[in-house]
Amino acid sequence: MKFIIQKDYLVRSVQDVMKAISSRTTIPILTGIKIVAHEEGVTLTGSDSDISIESFIPTEENGKSVVDIERAGSIVLQAKYFSEIVKKLPKDTVEIEVENHFMTKIKSGKAEFNLNGLDAQEYPLLPQIEDQNVFQLPTDLLKHMIRQTVFAVSTSETRPILTGVNWKVYNSELICIATDSHRLALRKAKIAAGKLAADFQANVVIPGKSLNELSKILDESEEMVDIVITDYQVLFRTKHLLFFTRLLEGNYPDTSRLIPDNSKTDIMVNTKEFLQAIDRASLLARDGRNNVVKLSTLANNMIEISSNSPEIGKVVEEIQCESIEGEELKISFSAKYMMDALKVLESTEIRTSFTGAMRPFLIRTSNDDSIVQLILPVRTY
Amino acid sequence: MKFIIQKDYLVRSVQDVMKAISSRTTIPILTGIKIVAHEEGVTLTGSDSDISIESFIPTEENGKSVVDIERAGSIVLQAKYFSEIVKKLPKDTVEIEVENHFMTKIKSGKAEFNLNGLDAQEYPLLPQIEDQNVFQLPTDLLKHMIRQTVFAVSTSETRPILTGVNWKVYNSELICIATDSHRLALRKAKIAAGKLAADFQANVVIPGKSLNELSKILDESEEMVDIVITDYQVLFRTKHLLFFTRLLEGNYPDTSRLIPDNSKTDIMVNTKEFLQAIDRASLLARDGRNNVVKLSTLANNMIEISSNSPEIGKVVEEIQCESIEGEELKISFSAKYMMDALKVLESTEIRTSFTGAMRPFLIRTSNDDSIVQLILPVRTY
Repeated sequence: MKFIIQKDYLVRSVQDVMKAISSRTTIPILTGIKIVAHEEGVTLTGSDSDISIESFIPTEENGKSVVDIERAGSIVLQAKYFSEIVKKLPKDTVEIEVENHFMTKIKSGKAEFNLNGLDAQEYPLLPQIEDQNVFQLPTDLLKHMIRQTVFAVSTSETRPILTGVNWKVYNSELICIATDSHRLALRKAKIAAGKLAADFQANVVIPGKSLNELSKILDESEEMVDIVITDYQVLFRTKHLLFFTRLLEGNYPDTSRLIPDNSKTDIMVNTKEFLQAIDRASLLARDGRNNVVKLSTLANNMIEISSNSPEIGKVVEEIQCESIEGEELKISFSAKYMMDALKVLESTEIRTSFTGAMRPFLIRTSNDDSIVQLILPVRTY
Repeated sequence: MKFIIQKDYLVRSVQDVMKAISSRTTIPILTGIKIVAHEEGVTLTGSDSDISIESFIPTEENGKSVVDIERAGSIVLQAKYFSEIVKKLPKDTVEIEVENHFMTKIKSGKAEFNLNGLDAQEYPLLPQIEDQNVFQLPTDLLKHMIRQTVFAVSTSETRPILTGVNWKVYNSELICIATDSHRLALRKAKIAAGKLAADFQANVVIPGKSLNELSKILDESEEMVDIVITDYQVLFRTKHLLFFTRLLEGNYPDTSRLIPDNSKTDIMVNTKEFLQAIDRASLLARDGRNNVVKLSTLANNMIEISSNSPEIGKVVEEIQCESIEGEELKISFSAKYMMDALKVLESTEIRTSFTGAMRPFLIRTSNDDSIVQLILPVRTY
């Protein structure tokens, strides 16, 4: 194998596949990056066996030469060293050549590295996924849907299925749901049916960690991402990137009955003012009081946010609301859960719908039902 | 105590005194910030008993009102909560009032905090330092002198005196020296003798940690800092800030004989090229080889930087030097020490002076003897 490549393309590709590589893997060859040089360009692969990422660098892009392949071939190089080396090379082009016994020469300007490589034949093969049921989402919408749900997954391994996000596809709609059993985030969107059978349905659970890594690797753009859901894997495909993740096994709980369809108190309030008041009230609640704050309705469309930690002190703040409809209310909830929900709602006004101090309540934007946040209150009375 | 204050002044002052406060102190009241309101303004104090910082906020600055004192008095408030609260207050002004039993009300807009305070009478008094021997340095020069020496202090407690920087004053000159016994950094500068006796001399050791905190708290400016050295304390004084640090007890080793006054090989080289080549060579040397790289002189004013870790690979790079004078040389040294030294030299060209592969060598800028870096080589032959 021998090729000369533009350094910035190589650095970018290495950074992308590094997101799948873990230093704590039990399979030694997975600490490496697989590099394959072929007629069309260079393909890099990284994997921790849960997530696998393949990045392709074409020989030319936009009429500009990117890679010059002198001899096809393949090698696996230690990711930890290779990634640091390419970042710090002195010139804009890099020559990479595999010599005897997988010894690989990396040359740029007057700097020359010789790295001990491993046989690429030993690297596990990526799953073959057939292009049967492909649907599409714009990259920025996909990133949004991930951000608006993944924060609500459970971080505890007591119910492993809750560490993932439930993705359901039917009627040309994708619904993403995450819950840690104290709160729930739901986001839905119409999908573009690329090559999707009209009656295609899917109901899978994608590890939260995988979605976080996917989101980091995707640029904010309107380009379409192909999504292929199979029984054990999901593949996300962009122009030069393949991102595979395994699925979580098991049945995701039925969350549809959790969401109340009526309410007794409805509050419309400015998101930022509400968020900042809760943030302030939580300052004194963090240590002793499990970060619980209290909301009480007052007269004249005012609410009061408060918290009291006898050892430290107390805080109280009034907020003018847009409107308060229905019954009076005093309710306590986790400030962290409320702030998490408000931060992803991306709306200047929000509506919270309560059905009493003991029942889960909903937070929504004023006129968009594609996103719902649900929080269970804390009993303090 | 009751006053109304501009929030940005309060936030800045709290941040400054927070640098002295440690959550791990054994003296409970030192987890608090002492606040004193008096006729001239408000004074905040933080201390971990090694470092004490006092920040003064005047009632007005540049003709603009900053603090409105309604009732003089004092209180100690938990630093952890108070610092977070002031940062997150909603309005530009803050009202602080001590009520019964040291309960303190902090009000801004519609947000009202009540914090349990402590009696300021219980707060330890800061040392009284008499203004006998004051000298001065511009703030930016002081920050430079700290940065160029403090990195070389020892991080090990086996010889506690080496965790400090040796400050010597005589002949209207300040000399700062730090060494961890493998390398040494020396920086000197003329001082402005504010109120200094002509024959004033000092030889003290200031904890490296104190100098790091001092450097963070000082703005990059040309304003003068007053420095008062006493037997047990040093005081740094700027317009609105007092910074006290205790000194390390014990005798600092005599380092003057460590610095060789002749050399056998002198190399002049571009600092950035040299630094980057060493950085690259160290990439493979970090794990197995204790970060040791090799420098060899070649013909035609070239040097070679290399490193070899049999399990990982090797790296070699040639650099064109400005000049090489004297004997041929092969020498090994810590890449980290060399990079630390080169980063603080702030010169496009540097001169390294060697007296053989086993002797300490010097790194200096081409035409300035106010800064010297010394490194002990590593024996590998």
